Amino acid sequence: MTTTDYEAVPAVEGDAEAPQLHTVVMKFGGTSVADPEKLKSVARRLVEAHESGARVVAVLSAMGRTTDELLDLARQVSQTPDARELDMLVSVGERISCALCAMAIHDLGHEAISLTGSQAGIVTDTVHGKAKIVDVRARRIHEALDRNEIVLVAGFQGVSSEHEVTTLGRGGSDTTAVALAAALGAEVCEIYTDVPGVFTADPRLVADARRLDVLFFEEMLEMASSGARVMATRSIEVARSHNVRLHVRSTFSDVPGTWIREEEPMLEKALISGVVHQREETVYRVAGVSAATLFAALAEASVNVDTIVQTGPEIVFSAPVEDRADAARTLDALGLDWTARDDLGKVSLVGAGMKSHPGVAAKTFATLEAAGIGTPIVSTSPIKIACHVASADVDRAVQALHRAFELG
Amino acid sequence: MTTTDYEAVPAVEGDAEAPQLHTVVMKFGGTSVADPEKLKSVARRLVEAHESGARVVAVLSAMGRTTDELLDLARQVSQTPDARELDMLVSVGERISCALCAMAIHDLGHEAISLTGSQAGIVTDTVHGKAKIVDVRARRIHEALDRNEIVLVAGFQGVSSEHEVTTLGRGGSDTTAVALAAALGAEVCEIYTDVPGVFTADPRLVADARRLDVLFFEEMLEMASSGARVMATRSIEVARSHNVRLHVRSTFSDVPGTWIREEEPMLEKALISGVVHQREETVYRVAGVSAATLFAALAEASVNVDTIVQTGPEIVFSAPVEDRADAARTLDALGLDWTARDDLGKVSLVGAGMKSHPGVAAKTFATLEAAGIGTPIVSTSPIKIACHVASADVDRAVQALHRAFELG
Repeated sequence: MTTTDYEAVPAVEGDAEAPQLHTVVMKFGGTSVADPEKLKSVARRLVEAHESGARVVAVLSAMGRTTDELLDLARQVSQTPDARELDMLVSVGERISCALCAMAIHDLGHEAISLTGSQAGIVTDTVHGKAKIVDVRARRIHEALDRNEIVLVAGFQGVSSEHEVTTLGRGGSDTTAVALAAALGAEVCEIYTDVPGVFTADPRLVADARRLDVLFFEEMLEMASSGARVMATRSIEVARSHNVRLHVRSTFSDVPGTWIREEEPMLEKALISGVVHQREETVYRVAGVSAATLFAALAEASVNVDTIVQTGPEIVFSAPVEDRADAARTLDALGLDWTARDDLGKVSLVGAGMKSHPGVAAKTFATLEAAGIGTPIVSTSPIKIACHVASADVDRAVQALHRAFELG
Repeated sequence: MTTTDYEAVPAVEGDAEAPQLHTVVMKFGGTSVADPEKLKSVARRLVEAHESGARVVAVLSAMGRTTDELLDLARQVSQTPDARELDMLVSVGERISCALCAMAIHDLGHEAISLTGSQAGIVTDTVHGKAKIVDVRARRIHEALDRNEIVLVAGFQGVSSEHEVTTLGRGGSDTTAVALAAALGAEVCEIYTDVPGVFTADPRLVADARRLDVLFFEEMLEMASSGARVMATRSIEVARSHNVRLHVRSTFSDVPGTWIREEEPMLEKALISGVVHQREETVYRVAGVSAATLFAALAEASVNVDTIVQTGPEIVFSAPVEDRADAARTLDALGLDWTARDDLGKVSLVGAGMKSHPGVAAKTFATLEAAGIGTPIVSTSPIKIACHVASADVDRAVQALHRAFELG
């Protein structure tokens, strides 16, 4: 199997019969636009794509530490900053990147226009700080593309049905990019990042970790929700449901990265695609409540519940460390007896090929047992086996599994 | 004459017969909101006004050096930044101040909402960087005031008829404040600044300069256009044409400042209100063009022409040093022969009382002559005598005139 099919698509459709221009959405994260020099090289990259004949829509994050600096200012004026005002505040970061990048593109002799989330027609619900995109009204983007302009859209933000500025929360810029790619019928949504693609394991932990050429949406979804930080889970969900082909690649090189696309049933697939991990995740144990009531309340509080396991009257679930306070408040409000463990992490084996290979689970447990690593909580899906282990054991577990499944 | 009448107005109308709430617009410049601590004290000031029973609308500038830092970023990515993108970029500064101040007000237990220029309904023409306000559609402000919220409006910016973010250029936040005060029928527009009012001369130059209790619009207009930096000329024009009472006062004390209001014909007025100066102003000499053609072209290029003097075929006019490049481009485009002097400043004597005292001009020239200061260009209005003098002589001229007219 090669990746040529996917990488060739834009060039073929764009160049073959001239008038039919293809659209590409290119998303650049904070490290890719960290300073004026990096912004200028992003501008050059966008101009190259434009000169190759594409209609180019770029989604930019805030420059480097801008968002953190704004949050720091907020903390200096208020212990509990108002959510609406926090959105007014932090949404300026992406606007700065986009305006600057547009200026740099003008200097290269091309036309460009920066748009706020609101101007780009990113319509969201009214949940400040964690808004969900409910519609994309891309009139201004289409008009700009028709004028042959490169369009720069401020990521991570939108405008609510009540005309308020909202932000999308974690992974917001990825979601902006994927939603735009879906709305514009883009050939591809390119996610530019500081790593050259998706790997079989974190290369900082596993020396012989390999970059993957292709992944299916389901695999990427499992990997992202199990700790692969390269893309946010919600953005992959949007890509899958609208069938937006993703290409995760490096900002700093032209080497192709990892393509993420629909599963092809006929295609022979590796047993395991990779091992992902999370060093910390809070694990809760709750009794005396129905799952329906519990998870409705947690969803209402915007707690991102990950794993759910129930084998008796007790419900066990995990959620990100950042959601600890929201979860605690919700559980207390329900008047429940609950406990939480803060000393666990998670190691997950992901691969579409494991569906038809029941031996994977057995091998996973044997490997961890041989390494002396206990697994207090286990959960599985058709393409994933996830084990909660002590945070201190996470690195060793990843290395042992990567070796055992010969992923290097 | 006392100033009690003017200073007492808001309190009387606001407190006397309870249900009739008055509206006050309070504008704070960049030094008043320079850091989180200063923003918090602005928040306290707004809450005090709100607790005293006023409907409070505040207009904030960007924090301290924010705008300069954004312009610096722009220069790092582009030598000739696009005007539209520059407006997208620099307009974020005021939004940051407003969002942070709203958070601080919430912490004090009051409701507040920050609005961008666009959300506040500040509609402008389409001239990026120097837009003029053409309408105020204050629906959202009224709704917020009706909900008993303190409203924070980002100064210096609006939205154009083509739905683009615009900035108002020099003195933009003052203009935002005055335009809002006019549209909302505010009792007063308070201009908070780092000096406690308008003085008979610059206190840094003249040791016994006095703070003025009251000035008429015409006087303030002459003083502002002749170098008093406390308020921008255009904002005073808006105040005069809509009869918005202004109160220029210190951010850092409760002492009343200078009231600026309509002239009362019956009121006995001091001969001279003050001496203002400008250390640098470019003076142009142009021949071979009609005044109509010349000033239409300069207006088109947004050059802020100040003095115009014509005594023969030659037209002499002055304009701010910052407009030098725009003016030069315009004069060249008209194919004119022109020269410019860059070594002149201007000293102006302003006072509504001088109308009926023809001796003022004579005394002015005698004073400057005695000080050995030449006046190559002179222009007058009913309430002003303006003399261009060498930049190096400006300080001495101010001191000599302040003494001669016993303003101390």
